[in-house]
This record gives sequence, structure tokens and C-alpha cells, in this order.
Amino acid sequence: MLGEHVSDWGQLITRSADEHRRRGIDVREQTEVVGIDLAAQRVHWRAGSSGAEGVEPYDLLAYTTGAHDVRPDLPGLDLGYPVFTPRQAMQLGGRLPPVQRALVVGGGYIGLEMVEAMRARGIATTLITRSAHCLRRTFDPEMATQVESVIESMQVDFRPATPLQAIERSSDAVVAHTARGEIETDIVILAIGSAPTVELAQAAGISLGETGAVAVDHEQRTRIDGVFAAGDCAEAWDVVGRRWSNWHLGTIANKAGRVAGRNVAALSRGDPLERFPGASGTTIVRLGEFELARTGLLESDARAQGFQIDTQQVETRQIAGYMPGASPLHAKLIFARDSGRVLGGQIVGQRGAGKRIDVVATAVMYGLTLQQLVDADLAYAPPFSPVWDPVQTAARAALQDQSRGSGTA
Amino acid sequence: MLGEHVSDWGQLITRSADEHRRRGIDVREQTEVVGIDLAAQRVHWRAGSSGAEGVEPYDLLAYTTGAHDVRPDLPGLDLGYPVFTPRQAMQLGGRLPPVQRALVVGGGYIGLEMVEAMRARGIATTLITRSAHCLRRTFDPEMATQVESVIESMQVDFRPATPLQAIERSSDAVVAHTARGEIETDIVILAIGSAPTVELAQAAGISLGETGAVAVDHEQRTRIDGVFAAGDCAEAWDVVGRRWSNWHLGTIANKAGRVAGRNVAALSRGDPLERFPGASGTTIVRLGEFELARTGLLESDARAQGFQIDTQQVETRQIAGYMPGASPLHAKLIFARDSGRVLGGQIVGQRGAGKRIDVVATAVMYGLTLQQLVDADLAYAPPFSPVWDPVQTAARAALQDQSRGSGTA
Repeated sequence: MLGEHVSDWGQLITRSADEHRRRGIDVREQTEVVGIDLAAQRVHWRAGSSGAEGVEPYDLLAYTTGAHDVRPDLPGLDLGYPVFTPRQAMQLGGRLPPVQRALVVGGGYIGLEMVEAMRARGIATTLITRSAHCLRRTFDPEMATQVESVIESMQVDFRPATPLQAIERSSDAVVAHTARGEIETDIVILAIGSAPTVELAQAAGISLGETGAVAVDHEQRTRIDGVFAAGDCAEAWDVVGRRWSNWHLGTIANKAGRVAGRNVAALSRGDPLERFPGASGTTIVRLGEFELARTGLLESDARAQGFQIDTQQVETRQIAGYMPGASPLHAKLIFARDSGRVLGGQIVGQRGAGKRIDVVATAVMYGLTLQQLVDADLAYAPPFSPVWDPVQTAARAALQDQSRGSGTA
Repeated sequence: MLGEHVSDWGQLITRSADEHRRRGIDVREQTEVVGIDLAAQRVHWRAGSSGAEGVEPYDLLAYTTGAHDVRPDLPGLDLGYPVFTPRQAMQLGGRLPPVQRALVVGGGYIGLEMVEAMRARGIATTLITRSAHCLRRTFDPEMATQVESVIESMQVDFRPATPLQAIERSSDAVVAHTARGEIETDIVILAIGSAPTVELAQAAGISLGETGAVAVDHEQRTRIDGVFAAGDCAEAWDVVGRRWSNWHLGTIANKAGRVAGRNVAALSRGDPLERFPGASGTTIVRLGEFELARTGLLESDARAQGFQIDTQQVETRQIAGYMPGASPLHAKLIFARDSGRVLGGQIVGQRGAGKRIDVVATAVMYGLTLQQLVDADLAYAPPFSPVWDPVQTAARAALQDQSRGSGTA
């Protein structure tokens, strides 16, 4: 859409309301739930079109409200074109008026996807981040540095450690005031994060977890009998950090939502419940010619949580070095110092680099060690990989350093 | 080289003889070992250039002679241009004279790579196979059928079940006689397989295994004290088939060779030996716009070995269906009927499809189940994957069929 790959918003919808209706599901569009009465087991709703209100009783309830863009409380920050969030940008899609300059605020995944989309349209783009590095929550600083080289190679004006302070609009431009001076631009995309949508749950008395998202168990049950929750609004178990987390990722929402839906049905039939064991926060994003992927614990998170870890970073290539298109691939592994158990990984490289994180994610989830990663029988042919897959090269280097007693910690 | 990706044979050599010498290794090029005297612990050699002969004593020996192309014993089959093997074709490389027509004999991986290289040069190509399907040893028939659609889409004249019987040369063409008639062509590439090079070992009295390759243990020791073997000439443990096998794959040769080399050094120092646990025969090959990948047991092998299995085949897409470039991906899983343990997998699809086999290979090696594959936290973004990775879609479909009691067996 914004990147002009997809022309129609409707293409992104897997099943339409009518398709759901044909499966016997009573879909009410443009109908907002304005309150949940847990004691009476009913929801209060208001129809967006007519303003009509009503109540709907339930036996079992699934709370799946998702997440919303965070909006900073800063002077001049009334939302609406030319200052908008990624969700609003997606809705604009192909109807984004032609502009020369864009300012993207925030260097998380969504911010980088916005940068990618702006550059694909040939728009001069500035990226500012509050922190010293982009991808602060998903990549360790030395890997983020690799990403920043990519950003700069895309002719993006990247300004780290530059918090936004205010926005000022004139008739023909927008001026962003930052801690490091003014930036004049045509549009501002505020990609500073998203938060679980929990207001209704909170008002009703459905417990939230420490993350601020709805607390659930592995069967997606909330603390209230008969009320399930799943998706960006709910917590999910971090299998490697061993704590409840709140990710806003399609994979996790899809899996947890599926378990919640099936468990609502199972409970109504008296069948055994299914279980969502959790996730490790695996993500991938495309940035220009590059692919960024990660899974599991960051080095900093692992240390903060008291894990005794070492790390290994290698530069190798994503395909056989003599093949056209071979280019540097940076990979980092985080692993338990004693057992060698793999706890996390990050990859930055060109075509074919990113999905390699899947083997690391599988290792992280099922407790595999560095040696088991080295011994895995991964696919090799020159157009696809060096003989030693990059994640194996990293694991092998880590084992060699360990046997030399020179761990990086 | 043959596909014109690589211009110089030397680019394919990881380390030159001089680089080895600088590391203190006494490299003798063009020096053939003509006999191994196990009792006296010495090898007899002959220098190819001078014809000089000599003996070299050893304390420890590594037998790493690799494999050679199989040459059928058929009338008219003197090798030499225009009738040659894949190894000879690679040596010709860029010096392959311009020709109009090529006949590739044999539909294994190497045969398909030859087809790929010929078509990349715009040469009209005929492929004949003895069996009813290509990739008989690596893909189940219904997946091979998908590959055959690809072959035919590349304007290759594919003729299965067409054994070669004789070759006849005239001044300006070659005529191949087959069980189904004559084929006139300019060159013939005989890609009918490779065999472990074991003559020296056999003559010396080093035991071979049931596969005909040198028998080794997990430390790469042969049955003779102080003699190690590794690579295409040696057996390797099939972790899923639970038997010794003989693969001719760079990954396995590299890993086993590394263990053999390190163990020769370790034994000379009295250090503990390393272990090569084995492999599952994971491979990937590019064919036109397509990627073919596989790991573990074939359905037919699994049944022949008495495994109680079911299988699941799905058609999905390699990236989000609404993205440009989205195209069908066929995936098949073979799994234990009772435990759901994943025993093998095969994938055929376009860009980005093939390396997905790595997660299946990891599952196969470490005994993961269908449910664990479904629960793996694999990376998703629209340019890289559907929300459910194709291997997870296959695993999920298998579980659904199982719970409906409708396994395909």
C-alpha cells in the first residue's frame, strides 16, 4: 500500500464480513462495544452509523481489541494530515498526496518500514530517534549500527538521540522542533510505538499483567471465568525470558487468537482446551536491499535478567562467496555461558539473509545448544548459502572461543 | 562456471596449496597415492609430472578420496567431448564450444543442475531419465511431478522412463539410442550418479560398509587403528533412518572432514575426540525460477523401513498472497503416525521457498513433533512469508487431519 506493492486495502483482508456470515458468524460492523458487564455477562454496544445502542448477552467472551498507535503529548501534535501515525498512513495508502520531504519519528520496526515506503516513493526522508540507536528494543547496539549503515546507504538523513519536542505547522510546511534543532518537512509520520488496547477490559475489571496488557494463561483464559483474550491486547509467554510479555506481532496474535477461538468452542462443548506455549519475539523486516531479523533475548535484556551469557558476532556471506550477489551478512548469537544453550540471535544482511533466523528461533524455543546448531543438517547450494550456514558459522566461532577460554563476556 | 555465474575455476577453491603450505602443511600436488600399506604404516605414491615414485610413512592417516562420476558400460560410450560427465563439464566451463542442442542423461540433482546451466545458455535441452520420475532418490513421486512441471515450463524436452542404450557419433552430431527411440544432439552430459572412491581403501583392507563406502564411527575412525575417513568416500549416520548412509553432499563432507582432521590432531596430542553425529540428507537446488529442497526420509523409504507414518502435502504461498511475486509453494511432510515426530520434508516453490527446509531439517534431527513445528516462532513479514510459514501450514493441516481421524495412510 504505502510502499505501492499493494493497491487495494481490501486485498489485505483474509476473510470478509460476508464470508464470516456464510460460516454462521453474526458479524456486526461499525459497532463499538462501550462497556462489558462481567456480573451480568453482557456487553453494551453503540452502532457507529445510527448511534443506536444496545446490550448483547454472552456465555463466553473473547477480548481481542488489539493495539493502537501511541500518540505523544507534545505541543502542536494534533493528528491529521500532514501529521499522522503509521495506521493512518496505511489508510491513506495510494492517496498520499505527492510530497518532497518526510520526517519519520521513531526507529522501531514500523518506523523503518515507513522509511522504506517513503524512500520507495523517492521522497527525501529524515528519521529521528529518541535513543542513540534505532531498533532499541529488538537489536543490540552493535547490530543496530549495521542497520544504521543501511539506513544511511538509502540516503536517509538519520539523526539519533534527537527527541521530538513540538510540531509547528505553516501554510506550506511543517517544522519539527527537536532537542537538536528544527527540521522542516512536508509530512510527519509518528511511529513511536503501539500500546495494548485495554481500556474496556480495565473498566470491566479484567486483570492486566505487569506489561499493562491483559493477563492470560496458556489457554488464553483471563482471570475472569469464561473470558478469553488474545492478540496485541494480551500478554504471551516469553519462552526464553521465562516471563509474560506483550508483543504486537501478527504471528503471535494469529496463533494465540486461534487457540482462544478454538478454546471458546471447546469450552462450550466440554472438550479439552488447546494451549499456546508462547513465543520468542521473532521478527523480520525488509529495509531497502537488506533484511533484518531477530529472535529471543537481547544481550542487554539477558544480562538485566541475570542470565550468565556470552555472545558471538560474525561477518560472513548469505550465499557462496564466489556467486554474483554475495554480500556481507552480520549475525550475532546470545547463549548461556555454561550450557551453550542458544537464547537469542540477530541477523542483518541482503537477500536470503533474514529467514535464517527461523533456525535460531527453533533452537531458542526448543532449548538447542551451540553444538546442536553446528550439527544441524542445513541446506547448502551456492545460490542459497555458504557450505556452513551463517548461523552455524556464528555457533562454531562461539564454541571455538569457548574452548580457547576467551568468551566475550 | 557452466551456468556462467563464475568465470574462473580458481574462485571455487577456498584455500590454495600455497595457503596450506603457509600454515605448515606439506602439500604434494599431482601426486597420486597408488597403495596403502597398513601393516608398515606407509603410502606408496607416484608423481604425475615426473613419474617418480616413493613411499611416505604415517602415524595417522585420513582417507578422503571423495567420489567419482559413474560411467555406464554402454556401446559407444567413450568419454571425451562431445560426450562427458558433469565433472568434465565443469572443467570445460566457459570453454564449452557453442552448441545448439544438449542431451542430459539422468534426473538427479546434478542432472537438473546441468539442465539449469544449459537452459541458462539458451541451449535446446532434452532430459532423459531411466525412472518414471526425476529425483527418484530424493523426492516422492507427487513432489517430483511438481518438479517436472517446472522442467517443462523451462522448455526442456523431458522424457522419463527412457533408458539410454548406446551412443553413436557422426561428424556433426551425436545420436543417443534409447529404449524409446533415437535422440539427435550436439553434446551428451552423463549425469547418472556418483560413487564413493574406495579402490585404494579396499585394496589395503580398510572395511567398507553396506553402502559400499568406507565404514566409520562417529569419530570418523575406520575399522583400522589410526586410520580416519570422511567425505563422499565414507559413510555417515542417518539420524532419522537410524542407519549408515553414503551421501555425496558438501555440507556433510565438510562437517565430517572437519571432525576427522581435528581428531587426527587430537589423537596425536592425546586430546578427547570430537564427534560427528550424522545428518538427514538435506539438500537444495535451484531450477530456473524454482527452488527444490528436501530433508530426511522419503515416504517410500520410511514405509520400506517399517516406520508407521502418515504424510501431509499442502499448496500454499512462499510470501503473503497479496504481495507481488507471491507464487504457489508445495510442501510435504512425512511424520510418525503415533508420536507426530517429523521424519522428512520436501518443498518446491519460487524465490524464498527452499531454505525453509532448514526448520524441517532441524525438527527432523532433534526429534520435534508436528505440534512443536506449529508452535515454533518463525519470522513473518509480508515480503518473506505468509503469517503461517508454509512448513507450519503443512504441520497444522497434518494435525487437523489426525484429529479428524483421516490420516492419509
